[in-house]
Amino acid sequence: MSHNLVLADWGTSNLRLWVLNETGQVCARTTSTDGADTLSSSAYAPLLRARLETLGIAPTTPVPVVVCGMAGARRGWCEADYVAVPAPPLACLNQAVSIFEAGLDVRILPGLAQNTADEPDVMRGEETQLLGFHKADPNFSGIVCLPGTHNKWVRVTQGQVMAFHTAMTGEIFALLSRHSVLRHVINGETHFAPGEPGFTAGLAEVFAKPSQWPLALFSIRAAGLLHGQTGKGAAARLSGLLVGVEVAAALSSMPGTCEVALLASGALSPLYAQAVAQAGWQCRLFDADSLTLAGLQHAARQLFPAFFKG
Amino acid sequence: MSHNLVLADWGTSNLRLWVLNETGQVCARTTSTDGADTLSSSAYAPLLRARLETLGIAPTTPVPVVVCGMAGARRGWCEADYVAVPAPPLACLNQAVSIFEAGLDVRILPGLAQNTADEPDVMRGEETQLLGFHKADPNFSGIVCLPGTHNKWVRVTQGQVMAFHTAMTGEIFALLSRHSVLRHVINGETHFAPGEPGFTAGLAEVFAKPSQWPLALFSIRAAGLLHGQTGKGAAARLSGLLVGVEVAAALSSMPGTCEVALLASGALSPLYAQAVAQAGWQCRLFDADSLTLAGLQHAARQLFPAFFKG
Repeated sequence: MSHNLVLADWGTSNLRLWVLNETGQVCARTTSTDGADTLSSSAYAPLLRARLETLGIAPTTPVPVVVCGMAGARRGWCEADYVAVPAPPLACLNQAVSIFEAGLDVRILPGLAQNTADEPDVMRGEETQLLGFHKADPNFSGIVCLPGTHNKWVRVTQGQVMAFHTAMTGEIFALLSRHSVLRHVINGETHFAPGEPGFTAGLAEVFAKPSQWPLALFSIRAAGLLHGQTGKGAAARLSGLLVGVEVAAALSSMPGTCEVALLASGALSPLYAQAVAQAGWQCRLFDADSLTLAGLQHAARQLFPAFFKG
Repeated sequence: MSHNLVLADWGTSNLRLWVLNETGQVCARTTSTDGADTLSSSAYAPLLRARLETLGIAPTTPVPVVVCGMAGARRGWCEADYVAVPAPPLACLNQAVSIFEAGLDVRILPGLAQNTADEPDVMRGEETQLLGFHKADPNFSGIVCLPGTHNKWVRVTQGQVMAFHTAMTGEIFALLSRHSVLRHVINGETHFAPGEPGFTAGLAEVFAKPSQWPLALFSIRAAGLLHGQTGKGAAARLSGLLVGVEVAAALSSMPGTCEVALLASGALSPLYAQAVAQAGWQCRLFDADSLTLAGLQHAARQLFPAFFKG
């Protein structure tokens, strides 16, 4: 029996690793930029071995590894086919893909798919956050919001994932602020404090006139030319407009009075908390990074029960 | 008196030149990629001289030149300050900026600005198309749509420009189709025929549920993963969603029953004609390139009357 078990959140841009010791406690962790976007399928195992050796882990027996995220995509390490929703939160575990390679005994968790003709959607990685959230609140009914580059809005009923939608807001903000004509006024100042008035104003503008936003974006550039708009103020207003139009769409697409559970970390957390509250909804905040770890730990207990008994 | 007069539409990406002979007829024309984006202010005159020499024009007396577009921007050849709307179509001519340099007698036409606190906006180049359109239909009242990288929607009353809005649809389509996660499904196939069903479907989807589009974009990617969506079909649907949300916003922002005059050339022309018609509005089509020339010709007659009398 190995002395360690490894948990990996292998996303598009980053790899986050946690190592558990014999008692199931996290004894080491590391984050690197070895994202799935840059790797061929044969590169995963050697890279993971190298990272583990850096952490002082050079196993003689195969190390159990649980992986979530884009490593399970078609162009990833090994494709783990999507589980179709509606699905109970543990459904992913039954369809984990096994790989034995380079002294690693790997299980890759599948993502979720909404396989309808008019609203197809997919997620990879967030299903593991949802698993961690399910452990924290097993009977939740309502909307779960998971902000990121591609935000997920998930309808959960009695702990079951019923449906979900993806919004590309994070990616659109990055493209518009860095590569569109708006870059001339934002001028690299894409980070702004949560209290920045432009963000609140952008949200208010969109909530008041949700269909008018396509004509509002360029006014950020014009305000730079005509009114001396600052870079930070411009970024905040752009973010307010984009987040506002997303939140308005998501909340109106999921009718029925209910609560929003916000699974977020870092800078996006206060922004989405403000947007949901400003839209008039109740919002409870959970730390996304902790939930990813909790979800992977829970998966590991199901997939490698012998390790935890040993 | 010079034997020639030069008209220039000097945009962000391209320079289009027309040369008029002594009788006021176009005797030569050329287009190059010497856009204002790539030029410092001292580069304009030598470049224009070089282009004219290529056309066989090496003047001994100063050549009259009329310029519209981004050459008049703050970072252009020489800033031509905006004329504030509401403004009559000829207002720009009174505020043209004069430059005498390298045997050229240049007038740069100013753009238009909407200098309000909540809806600031600017245009450069389109005001010259509007001047050409005014010559074609002096008493027009209605909405003028000028598609491009940055589309302009202009409210005109009895030939006077009352207000306008810019939509960044062209730029957003280019960024999303080439640089976002949607590039994996569009796969470089950004050009599609006007009859492509995805475009019509995207428009219909947005017109039916205008506030839901932020949740629709990613479904293009998911349809590629789950349903084998083609690149061309994906590009058409993305275009339909973006053009649809723009057209819906523009037409609802300009209330009152009236007609849309569409000033367009090339591939955008049938797409916007379809979108306006599918939204239930009357649409009359004008060739934008011809109107730019007509606007510059009209400006030249006012600014250099002696040339036309000579």
